[in-house]
Amino acid sequence: MVQYIARLDNSFGALSDATRRGVLERLGRADASITDLADAFDMTLTGMKKHVSILETAGFVTTEKVGRVRTCRLGKRILDEEAAWIERYRRLWEARFDVLDDVIEDLKQKEKPDGR
Amino acid sequence: MVQYIARLDNSFGALSDATRRGVLERLGRADASITDLADAFDMTLTGMKKHVSILETAGFVTTEKVGRVRTCRLGKRILDEEAAWIERYRRLWEARFDVLDDVIEDLKQKEKPDGR
Repeated sequence: MVQYIARLDNSFGALSDATRRGVLERLGRADASITDLADAFDMTLTGMKKHVSILETAGFVTTEKVGRVRTCRLGKRILDEEAAWIERYRRLWEARFDVLDDVIEDLKQKEKPDGR
Repeated sequence: MVQYIARLDNSFGALSDATRRGVLERLGRADASITDLADAFDMTLTGMKKHVSILETAGFVTTEKVGRVRTCRLGKRILDEEAAWIERYRRLWEARFDVLDDVIEDLKQKEKPDGR
């Protein structure tokens, strides 16, 4: 459970940056070196390394260094736990607003002069 | 588009903390004051106010102050954009790994002495 919580903290944190979401979408099309990614996102190598490191910690990306080139590819995590959390929350949300709708409908009925 | 990006930054950021996810789940069951929430999560009022403020900025929570009590309830955002982003990423991911599977299958066939 503690690990699950830490994974969600890390993964939602990793997704909270537009560049990092962009890197994932790009790696979804093809592997890329840190240099490729830095160029594509108009960013310094140091800046891109930090982003990749956060994605790596979250398990979304793996990297491999061959010679001077570090290649990044998508990791094994398919965001299943994140999708499940969001889906559970959406169900809670809908249930909550259904209840509120019922309360409002009930009040409306009571307010009608002929309502009983 | 810029607003959409900022919304995703804010909302994934808001979700990257276990307490904030817990607050959303709790508000999915019933409205609560900041004091209720601070007690429930064993936290100072100041700490809880910060968390609620982040959830409010992300549009997940609305608050209303009546007298000295600030009541928190779920906001109107149902995480539809976040669910859609994750779903699009998952499809990219699956497509990418399908391609890799094909490449590996192809290599295996070529390696077989009788493969052609």
